[in-house]
Amino acid sequence: MNTVTGTGTGVSAAELEGRLRALGEERYHHRHPFNLRMHAGELSKEELRRWVLNRFHYQRHIPVKDALILARLGSSDLRRSWIRRVHDHDGAPDGDGTDGGIERWLRLGEAVGLDRALLLSGKGVLPGVRLAVEGYVNFCRNASILEAVASSLTELFAPDLMATRIAAWEQHYPWVEREGLRYFQVRVGQGRRDSEEALRLVQAWARTPEDRERVLAAFAFKCDLLWSLLDAVEHADGQGRRGTFDAV
Amino acid sequence: MNTVTGTGTGVSAAELEGRLRALGEERYHHRHPFNLRMHAGELSKEELRRWVLNRFHYQRHIPVKDALILARLGSSDLRRSWIRRVHDHDGAPDGDGTDGGIERWLRLGEAVGLDRALLLSGKGVLPGVRLAVEGYVNFCRNASILEAVASSLTELFAPDLMATRIAAWEQHYPWVEREGLRYFQVRVGQGRRDSEEALRLVQAWARTPEDRERVLAAFAFKCDLLWSLLDAVEHADGQGRRGTFDAV
Repeated sequence: MNTVTGTGTGVSAAELEGRLRALGEERYHHRHPFNLRMHAGELSKEELRRWVLNRFHYQRHIPVKDALILARLGSSDLRRSWIRRVHDHDGAPDGDGTDGGIERWLRLGEAVGLDRALLLSGKGVLPGVRLAVEGYVNFCRNASILEAVASSLTELFAPDLMATRIAAWEQHYPWVEREGLRYFQVRVGQGRRDSEEALRLVQAWARTPEDRERVLAAFAFKCDLLWSLLDAVEHADGQGRRGTFDAV
Repeated sequence: MNTVTGTGTGVSAAELEGRLRALGEERYHHRHPFNLRMHAGELSKEELRRWVLNRFHYQRHIPVKDALILARLGSSDLRRSWIRRVHDHDGAPDGDGTDGGIERWLRLGEAVGLDRALLLSGKGVLPGVRLAVEGYVNFCRNASILEAVASSLTELFAPDLMATRIAAWEQHYPWVEREGLRYFQVRVGQGRRDSEEALRLVQAWARTPEDRERVLAAFAFKCDLLWSLLDAVEHADGQGRRGTFDAV
C-alpha cells in the first residue's frame, strides 16, 4: 500500500481504505430493511416491481453523473479510463445499446412484468427517489472532484450485494425470468474494476487529514442517499399516497 | 430536407441551415486577419508557435465541453453518438491516447518546435484565450442543450478551413515537419461527421421561431469566441505585455 504524505500530516492509503470499509459495513444499503426482506424472499410481486421501476430512475442517471465527473477530470489519461463507465451503461459507441446496463435493466423490468415503455416514461417514480437521484447528480456536479469520485466508492460493496441478490432471486422469486438477472451478473465484475480505480484515485488525491474526512463524508453521503432511496420505496404504501406501481 | 413544425409557426430545417451557413460565411474565423495572414504565408515562426500554443488551450478543453453536453443528453442513443467526440480527442478507452486529437496537437507543437511539456504546462496562454475557452465551456454547461449543441455547428466550416490550412502550411512553412499536419487532416472527416450530426439534432429540436433565433445566436456567440481567441493571439505583441512565447 502506498502512503501519500502531504505537508507533514500523512494520510495512510491503507487506513483510508480501512475506514471506508468500516463505514460501508455500517451504512451501505445491504443492511436496509427493504434489501433484507428482498433477499429473505419476503417481498410481494408488487414490492419487487416497485423497486425495479424506481431503481431504474437511479440507473438511467448513472451515465449522467459519470459524464459530469468526466468533464472534471483534468487529463485525457483519466478520462480514457473513466469513460468506460458511460459505455457500461449506455452501450458502446455506434452500437444499438443492447450491450449496455440501461438496456439490461429494461430487460430486468420485463422479467418482473413491467413494460419497458413504462420504465422509460418515468411514470410512478416516487418523489423521495427523484430527490435522492437529483441529489446525487448535483453532488457530482458541484462537490470537489475528490468528493465526486469518493461518492462512487459504494461500488466496493456492490459485488457482494449482487452475488447475494442473484442467489436470493433464483431461490425466492422463481417467477422472475432468469434472463432478467443479467444486469446483476455483469455488475459483479464492473463494480470490482470501478471501485478499484476510484479507490486508487482517492488514495492518490487525499493528501491531508481534511481531505480524508471529505472522502469519508462523501462516501457516507452516498450511503445515506442509497438508503433514502430504499426508504422511499419501502414506505410508498400506507402514507395516504397511492403506491408507485398503482399510480401508473 | 425535413421540416419540423411547432405550434402553427413552422421552422424550416432548410431555412435554418441556410441562415447558419450565411452567418458563418460572414462571422466564422476563416475571415480573421490572423488566419488570412497564416494562409498567405505571412506569419513569423514566433507567431505560428504562439498560435499553436494558445490554440492548444482550446483543444484540451474540447473533451471537457463535450462531456458537459453528454451529461445533458437525455438518452443512451444520443450519448452513444456524442461520446465519439470525447474519444476523438482523448483517444479510445484503455488505449495510450496516441490515437487522440490532443496527442496529435502535441505532435503539431513538436513539429513547430514547441516541447510537449511546455504545452501541457499551460504556461504562456494569453488571458484573452483563457477567457474565450472558459466562456465556451461555461456556455456548454449553462445554456440550453439546444444552444450548447448549436454552438458546435462552427464545425460546418472546419473541413474547408482545414483543407486550406494544410495546403498553405505545406507551401509556406516548409520548416514545419509534415507529420505535424496530421491533426488538420484527421479533422476534415471528423468535422464533417460531427457537424452533420449536430445539424440534424438542432433541426429536430428547433420547433419555434424563438428556438431558431436561439440557435443562430448560439452559433454567432461561438463564431465571436473563436474570433476573440485569434484577436488575443494576434495582438499579444506591442501592448506593454510580453508575447506568449517570450513569457515562458
